Amino acid sequence: MCILTSLETKRSHILIAIDAMGGDFAPVNVIAGTIDALRETSNRFEVVLVGSGDKLMKETQKYKGEELRYCIQEASQVIDMHDPATAGIKQKRDSSISVGITMHKEGNADAFVSAGHSGAVLSTATLILGRLEGIGRPTIGTFLPTERGVCLLLDAGANVDCKPQHLYEFALMGSIYSSEMFQIKNPSIGLLNIGEEESKGNDVVKEAHKLLSKSKLNFIGNVEGRDILPGKSDVVVCDGFIGNVILKFGESIPSFFKGRIKRIASKNIFMKVFSGLVRNTLREALKSMDYEEYGGVPVLGVNGVVIIGHGKSTPKAIKNMLLRAEEMVRKNINGRIQEALTIEK
Amino acid sequence: MCILTSLETKRSHILIAIDAMGGDFAPVNVIAGTIDALRETSNRFEVVLVGSGDKLMKETQKYKGEELRYCIQEASQVIDMHDPATAGIKQKRDSSISVGITMHKEGNADAFVSAGHSGAVLSTATLILGRLEGIGRPTIGTFLPTERGVCLLLDAGANVDCKPQHLYEFALMGSIYSSEMFQIKNPSIGLLNIGEEESKGNDVVKEAHKLLSKSKLNFIGNVEGRDILPGKSDVVVCDGFIGNVILKFGESIPSFFKGRIKRIASKNIFMKVFSGLVRNTLREALKSMDYEEYGGVPVLGVNGVVIIGHGKSTPKAIKNMLLRAEEMVRKNINGRIQEALTIEK
Repeated sequence: MCILTSLETKRSHILIAIDAMGGDFAPVNVIAGTIDALRETSNRFEVVLVGSGDKLMKETQKYKGEELRYCIQEASQVIDMHDPATAGIKQKRDSSISVGITMHKEGNADAFVSAGHSGAVLSTATLILGRLEGIGRPTIGTFLPTERGVCLLLDAGANVDCKPQHLYEFALMGSIYSSEMFQIKNPSIGLLNIGEEESKGNDVVKEAHKLLSKSKLNFIGNVEGRDILPGKSDVVVCDGFIGNVILKFGESIPSFFKGRIKRIASKNIFMKVFSGLVRNTLREALKSMDYEEYGGVPVLGVNGVVIIGHGKSTPKAIKNMLLRAEEMVRKNINGRIQEALTIEK
Repeated sequence: MCILTSLETKRSHILIAIDAMGGDFAPVNVIAGTIDALRETSNRFEVVLVGSGDKLMKETQKYKGEELRYCIQEASQVIDMHDPATAGIKQKRDSSISVGITMHKEGNADAFVSAGHSGAVLSTATLILGRLEGIGRPTIGTFLPTERGVCLLLDAGANVDCKPQHLYEFALMGSIYSSEMFQIKNPSIGLLNIGEEESKGNDVVKEAHKLLSKSKLNFIGNVEGRDILPGKSDVVVCDGFIGNVILKFGESIPSFFKGRIKRIASKNIFMKVFSGLVRNTLREALKSMDYEEYGGVPVLGVNGVVIIGHGKSTPKAIKNMLLRAEEMVRKNINGRIQEALTIEK
């Protein structure tokens, strides 16, 4: 472990800056997840823990003696959940989020990941890193389990009002992401709507339907709420209001069923005996709905690699966020998006 | 059983007109459900089966010999799923939907229920029955299971674009419905949004938040997608685009889990033996997500009592639709809505 005294580093490895103060269990889970990622990959990449030097030094003591490639970058402030999304570029410019994203902007990190204030990460990343050329609105994608695997839903909450062009851009970025990161050939794109017919929906989706139909994307038309879980399309495009509601509704399903099954089991002696079995089955069935498997969700459309994690991120989730960020850098997702935009023109 | 030759009937009972041609399994399920409802309530109300006299006569033969209060009203046309929502007032004015709603309009029925083309039922009802005074947009409410029972979500698809005033009206009608039909005292109203703070969301929900805060309703503020299943509010208000997506997403959950559990069970011999047990538990856990229990959903804001059912309605669902319609008539839900609108002014 080293402590960065200057933002300049000489490096041959991919280097990921992580918000060590972000999330409900920071810095403990962030550091534990970082250690796991480095151990598991035999130091395939480097990590800079951004945050309070004192706190991070103390927590990393637990792991001393191990040859792991991580450093600490001091940041004196922390953006908490009560701060506005603009805090990173206004009141708290020395926050772990702002410092980490600035490192990335200046080329001192190849990616930035955070389980902290997602609105602040999005705003700070958009303002400091800027947008990719040809992209009007950066978006947050999220993953939903399907009967066929997983689908990428975007926007998951970054943009509450969208124009048709934005939905088209989300589709293009989602297509590239799914194809590169999930190895899905020519991913199918569905436009979330309230009916299959192109005449359905509000003006924005009707116009987006036209744009997508004219594009070179594998657009399969409208998909409905009932088509998401069966996996009718690899990518589901919608505005951030509805995407956020669906995402959070989906996240609440496991605990709803757990509670319900517990109540059913408690009413029946036979069921009580086997409730462990039922619970285990359910746990496995629900596993794919668990954010921790995916680790985090990408911010697409900014000029950089940024991953946002759940506030309750476990070490496993943090580890997966780092692995995902490394993969996005290696696969040059942003380069692919720019190429696709050029082809579409 | 009688055949109506004129639309005039003398009656002391509540009379419900049902679209006997509506739904994927009409007229079989419609008639079976009607018979069940009349048997179960000992002819507490009367039913008019609206549709093709020949077909209905043939199907009702199965039940001859029983003293059940139902009649047939001839309607020569059927609106099918490929017809536009306006068919009931344009091309197919002699459809079972149009004839049934006209009976209701003219006082020859106290309510109308249909498991047919819901868009056509909504349009035809709105145009023939008209709106309740003070209501800008009729809405379709739907029921979602919660940890605390059930919540009423509206709008579930009638209005893809809403103004703040419409959301307020949905809240008021939902409050009355929940209070009268579910005996919930002073139902809590949540505005579906992407965050708890009133500054969250798009312009429409921000403005609706202000209207609801000023009202006499028991408005508890914004609710998020994750708050629906735990039952944070008795009524959830949103526009019809998002409501429809949530409704259909919710409907797809049971089969998603059934498929998943089947796959898990098939991998494990021990699990195979007990898969029946797991399936039964799951079935019970999912039961409350089953439309058949609720039967149908109310159209609120039209000058009449109209219930829309699922296209796949079983006899049980049809029976429950009729019982619900009778209850709405008895409880004079529309009168209560008008009173509440007066109080709010």
